[in-house]
Amino acid sequence: MIKKRLLASAIAMGSALAIAAPAMADDLGNYRDRFEPLPHFPPIPADNSLTPEQVELGKFLFFEPRISSSGVISCATCHNPALGWADRIPRATGHDGQIGERNTPTVLNSGFLESQFWDGREPDLEGQALGPIEADVEMAMDLDSALERLTEFDLYQEKFARAFPDDDDPINADNLAHSLASFQRTLNTPNSPFDRYLRGDMEALNEQEKDGMVAFVDNGCIACHSGPALTDSNFHRIQVPGSTDVGRYEVTGDEADMYRFRTPTLRNVAVTYPYMNTGATETLEESVAIMGKEMLGRELDEQTIDDITAFMHTLTGEMPALEIPALP
Amino acid sequence: MIKKRLLASAIAMGSALAIAAPAMADDLGNYRDRFEPLPHFPPIPADNSLTPEQVELGKFLFFEPRISSSGVISCATCHNPALGWADRIPRATGHDGQIGERNTPTVLNSGFLESQFWDGREPDLEGQALGPIEADVEMAMDLDSALERLTEFDLYQEKFARAFPDDDDPINADNLAHSLASFQRTLNTPNSPFDRYLRGDMEALNEQEKDGMVAFVDNGCIACHSGPALTDSNFHRIQVPGSTDVGRYEVTGDEADMYRFRTPTLRNVAVTYPYMNTGATETLEESVAIMGKEMLGRELDEQTIDDITAFMHTLTGEMPALEIPALP
Repeated sequence: MIKKRLLASAIAMGSALAIAAPAMADDLGNYRDRFEPLPHFPPIPADNSLTPEQVELGKFLFFEPRISSSGVISCATCHNPALGWADRIPRATGHDGQIGERNTPTVLNSGFLESQFWDGREPDLEGQALGPIEADVEMAMDLDSALERLTEFDLYQEKFARAFPDDDDPINADNLAHSLASFQRTLNTPNSPFDRYLRGDMEALNEQEKDGMVAFVDNGCIACHSGPALTDSNFHRIQVPGSTDVGRYEVTGDEADMYRFRTPTLRNVAVTYPYMNTGATETLEESVAIMGKEMLGRELDEQTIDDITAFMHTLTGEMPALEIPALP
Repeated sequence: MIKKRLLASAIAMGSALAIAAPAMADDLGNYRDRFEPLPHFPPIPADNSLTPEQVELGKFLFFEPRISSSGVISCATCHNPALGWADRIPRATGHDGQIGERNTPTVLNSGFLESQFWDGREPDLEGQALGPIEADVEMAMDLDSALERLTEFDLYQEKFARAFPDDDDPINADNLAHSLASFQRTLNTPNSPFDRYLRGDMEALNEQEKDGMVAFVDNGCIACHSGPALTDSNFHRIQVPGSTDVGRYEVTGDEADMYRFRTPTLRNVAVTYPYMNTGATETLEESVAIMGKEMLGRELDEQTIDDITAFMHTLTGEMPALEIPALP
């Protein structure tokens, strides 16, 4: 990092050292240094190693509709790989067509978040994984029945045994959660244009996109949208018009948490519309304007909105390679 | 074909000609000759060429949930690539959790069928494609609204224009049907063990599987399950216990068609359970026994059932390679 800063200032001074850079550096080093490129993998928890056997099992389970009470809804129904691993509708539609209260967050890069769900009610993916299976408006399945259904298949008996070789009875709720979490930790999108820019390819962003990055910093968006996933994983107050959702308050019961939601990641934001906790906003331009007004108290002008939107588009990374599993 | 027969009899006579065969031929040539290997592509209709542009567009549309009224059901919901391109539940579950009357047929090799749907009410895939979009218990979408939604996306405007370059207004119902049909004609499963056996690899089937092929012929299953897709595309009377579905009669109004259904393909039958028009039967063994009794008037013994079941497993071919499209 220090080396990069030195290099950038050397270039700014017109030093011959510039030939060492992959491309002629621009003079935005102070801005670039506020960001972090997305690593290929998120932190892996000490008590859930990312083994190939768990990832493979988790992939099967992610696409498995037989762990829903209807037999037709899987994790991949709402976290659809064809739709940015989300659903592109305002609020999630689950069991029997019921419509939930919140917009489906993408699972892409979710391992980088320090808490899960809009209200952060679970600390990690292991805690998150079983919620949608049991939720009445999602997969509407009790966990024991889900585990029983899996037990009926020889293939799952084999795959759980291989993934959890120390367990006598490996098809259990903990292992279901652990393998789903492990699979999700592989769903990352590195090498976006912005990541390539941060790593030294000065031409990976065009002038407008760079202007957008500058506006993103100068207007204070980066205060909450920071770190590799462009979220502080903290809770901030926002009340979308028409929404009575109290957010984080439901979890803590603390008045101070009323209407607070966890900052969403901006990674792949261009392909994970619509926006806000109710999915009420369809376009990035509108979202940027709302955020400017509600969170930063600024009426952003059209040029700034367009620039920031252009910058948002550079955050779309390489989608995970996926071979659809042949379920038993 | 004649050459193959000559070869087989030459081998039976112990002739030195046998060295020309890829493997030592067994003495079942007369049985093998009753079957046809699955071609890599079905017949392509003269009025709908299989162009790469149409296939690509059709793939996007097949995975597109925005052409359903809920915005969450696509063709791939019930014709799920993870589940043998069907759904593995007895009867299809569609809009708002409604349950349909019939079991979802796989789309694999559906281009080889001479009529579509259990009751054969459409002659081809072009005729079939729009039915499930409009059906109240499936995607529940009126066609004009579906086309309007597609028109909103620049990507679909481009893809329809590329696939149908002679049309001024290419996003229309005919082209929607044509491109979906073209994509489906690529979903074929050649090179099953049985196909390899028919093409001369005598070791692609083991002894029990060959016994099953013989039993399949000798017991008369082949009377209806013939041709490359192992269906005669004709209508036969069967009334599954508890079902009041009148089948083909609904289409023709002809009393003779009461309870008649089109013979289903046996290609990939091992991965497209459950069986029968109501999906009432979970295992192949049970299905073989029922078919023997109801269609052939024979009480098949356990060994025969096991042999035919083993043969059924050799009909699972290579699944189509698929990259999930990134929808707009």
